[in-house]
Amino acid sequence: MARLDALARFSDEEGHLARTFLSPAHRCAADRVKAWMEEAGMTARIDAIGNVVGRYEGRRPGAPALLIGSHLDTVRRAGRYDGSFGVLTAVAAVAELSARGMRFETAVEVIAFGDEEGVRFPTTLSGSRAIAGTFDAAALDLVDDRGITLRDALAAFGCDPAAIGAVARRPEDILGYVEVHIEQGPVLEREGLAVGVVTAIAGASRAAIDVAGEAGHAGTVPMGLRRDALAAAAEMVLAVESTGRSAPDLVATVGRLVAEPGAVNVIPGRAAFTVDLRHPEDAVREAAIAALEGRIREIATRRGVRAEIRPTHAARATRCDPGMIAALSRAVAEAGLPVRLLPSGAGHDAMAVAALCPVGMLFVRCAGGVSHDPAEAVDQADAGAALDVLLRFLLNVLHAGAVR
Amino acid sequence: MARLDALARFSDEEGHLARTFLSPAHRCAADRVKAWMEEAGMTARIDAIGNVVGRYEGRRPGAPALLIGSHLDTVRRAGRYDGSFGVLTAVAAVAELSARGMRFETAVEVIAFGDEEGVRFPTTLSGSRAIAGTFDAAALDLVDDRGITLRDALAAFGCDPAAIGAVARRPEDILGYVEVHIEQGPVLEREGLAVGVVTAIAGASRAAIDVAGEAGHAGTVPMGLRRDALAAAAEMVLAVESTGRSAPDLVATVGRLVAEPGAVNVIPGRAAFTVDLRHPEDAVREAAIAALEGRIREIATRRGVRAEIRPTHAARATRCDPGMIAALSRAVAEAGLPVRLLPSGAGHDAMAVAALCPVGMLFVRCAGGVSHDPAEAVDQADAGAALDVLLRFLLNVLHAGAVR
Repeated sequence: MARLDALARFSDEEGHLARTFLSPAHRCAADRVKAWMEEAGMTARIDAIGNVVGRYEGRRPGAPALLIGSHLDTVRRAGRYDGSFGVLTAVAAVAELSARGMRFETAVEVIAFGDEEGVRFPTTLSGSRAIAGTFDAAALDLVDDRGITLRDALAAFGCDPAAIGAVARRPEDILGYVEVHIEQGPVLEREGLAVGVVTAIAGASRAAIDVAGEAGHAGTVPMGLRRDALAAAAEMVLAVESTGRSAPDLVATVGRLVAEPGAVNVIPGRAAFTVDLRHPEDAVREAAIAALEGRIREIATRRGVRAEIRPTHAARATRCDPGMIAALSRAVAEAGLPVRLLPSGAGHDAMAVAALCPVGMLFVRCAGGVSHDPAEAVDQADAGAALDVLLRFLLNVLHAGAVR
Repeated sequence: MARLDALARFSDEEGHLARTFLSPAHRCAADRVKAWMEEAGMTARIDAIGNVVGRYEGRRPGAPALLIGSHLDTVRRAGRYDGSFGVLTAVAAVAELSARGMRFETAVEVIAFGDEEGVRFPTTLSGSRAIAGTFDAAALDLVDDRGITLRDALAAFGCDPAAIGAVARRPEDILGYVEVHIEQGPVLEREGLAVGVVTAIAGASRAAIDVAGEAGHAGTVPMGLRRDALAAAAEMVLAVESTGRSAPDLVATVGRLVAEPGAVNVIPGRAAFTVDLRHPEDAVREAAIAALEGRIREIATRRGVRAEIRPTHAARATRCDPGMIAALSRAVAEAGLPVRLLPSGAGHDAMAVAALCPVGMLFVRCAGGVSHDPAEAVDQADAGAALDVLLRFLLNVLHAGAVR
């Protein structure tokens, strides 16, 4: 917990935590984590995409490795647990193996990725994609708000962009990947549980909807002659909500809505809103989006307004490996805790690493389900429980030499 | 029609029509209208509150007068018919009486008010209130955006603020007030009618509603654990709409709605919207507002959000005088047109003048029901019909010496 506090002081901005990919604060945090990895008995380096990679060697050099990771970058006005908690829990677990002098047929590597939040460049998961061999070199030409390319930012960070291809791992060298992360939701807290085992990372569909009706004087246009864009959008917002309620684990949200012209005495002629819909099964998500589009079109037709539906984003779901789920569940049970399986509604590096190897995730309870906010908090006892479960998982897997 | 075009060139701003109370453009327009009044056989002056008052004397000086009026000020980016059409139709009608050499026991006065839109100062209807004797001298201390008081603006316009009290007319000197105005709504156009007779100017209630729920991550908070402020507000918007549909002549509008924080992947924790509700009968309006408040509170309670309802404005309805309605209807029928009675959802100077004398209004069809926009348009034939009806009304009333 003290290390989380220390890490939170490395920020791009004064007064709050903001640590974006390849910033000087990211460099300071990476160097500090590298030192902690070495202190925990690992050999550590920063690779060509800015990942901090610590290796706790197996009995024989070059042994296959079990990966544990999360990320060091944050959103702006962030909390100190999102990402960093998983990195430091992994370092603490390896430190315990090292303190006990334990070596296995399998090595353990801790990876601190640098680009999970996607705040600085219009890309995300660069570090975990590079590890998985799916990093697209075209992203090197993307620029941040100040016009700096990812390529130049990497060079300034001390990385060699030309060497990113070599960061990719061979599947035969990797046993699997496990990530500990704060839940970022209220389920564990609501059920009084310290940890939960993730079944899948939900796929997400996003869309922007524009509704065009007819503006008019709020006093002079009779109700029957109106084509009120906001009233139509309001009915569509409720359709989004009821779609979200139509299947277990489905969530659907309207986060943004604007109405124009936006005067108290003018009937809105235009409204625009966003939809974010997620589910751990792609088929369920795709069926829900299709049903929602039908409902939006029906509402528009009935009300005599035009609705333009523009998909803006679609990401497939990532299933956690059944062996990982079983091994994490066993560790939870051995720690004397109830086993709660739950999907992740938020995205994680594990999505990218899943292209390389089996992945699993352990969620830890966070206060109020709050994340991406300075109010983010993890109880010390819960942090201890997460470390205990991770250590039990590692010992089981490393003794067996396989995830099962 | 040519005079409407000429008047539209007097604007505070280049490129579009914006003529605010007591601006140099208002002064130019007032002087021009005064000249047209004199040309029409009236004696004309600009009074202490900036009204242009033209008097077509009766057979004996000091005879009681029938008033015809509307306003010269406009909104920003205005059309050229709102207000000005009524003023110039009145001048044209008197010009016709004068051309025919007709004098009556009753005088006719045309008044061009200067402050109907309430754009410049946080007050409205100053000119018509002064005529009715209800002008509040405290308003003289109100300031515009540049910190100029109404008092100083009047002085700069050439008016004596100390003389405003003397602008008030005695009820025994006034037969009644009639105003011709564009409908600002789509009813006449929809029914293929050039003109309509106004029954009442609707009263209006406005309120601001704040909804406080709980923000959260759009991916991680299950639907059942949400307190989504925007979804709650959407249900309330539909309650406003269905309230508006619950009685004839009732209209209810949500013109503004904002949701916060307003990110695609964040459940809104707060939403705020406005309500504007109008009806020509105060009892209906008050019952509708009370019912709507109950529905909003029920929605908030059921959804576990807080809703704060803050009334921001309430104006009572103004009934047009039954004698005026009858006299205007008779003139419409004599002009060979169908008689359509309809309420006014927008406010007018007639509301203020009603404190002095019986009032009546004649609406003229405007294209698409559009007003407060450069696209505002009145057909030349409709303008002719309105003038014909006004002239028939005047002749009937002036020959009889009474409104009946």
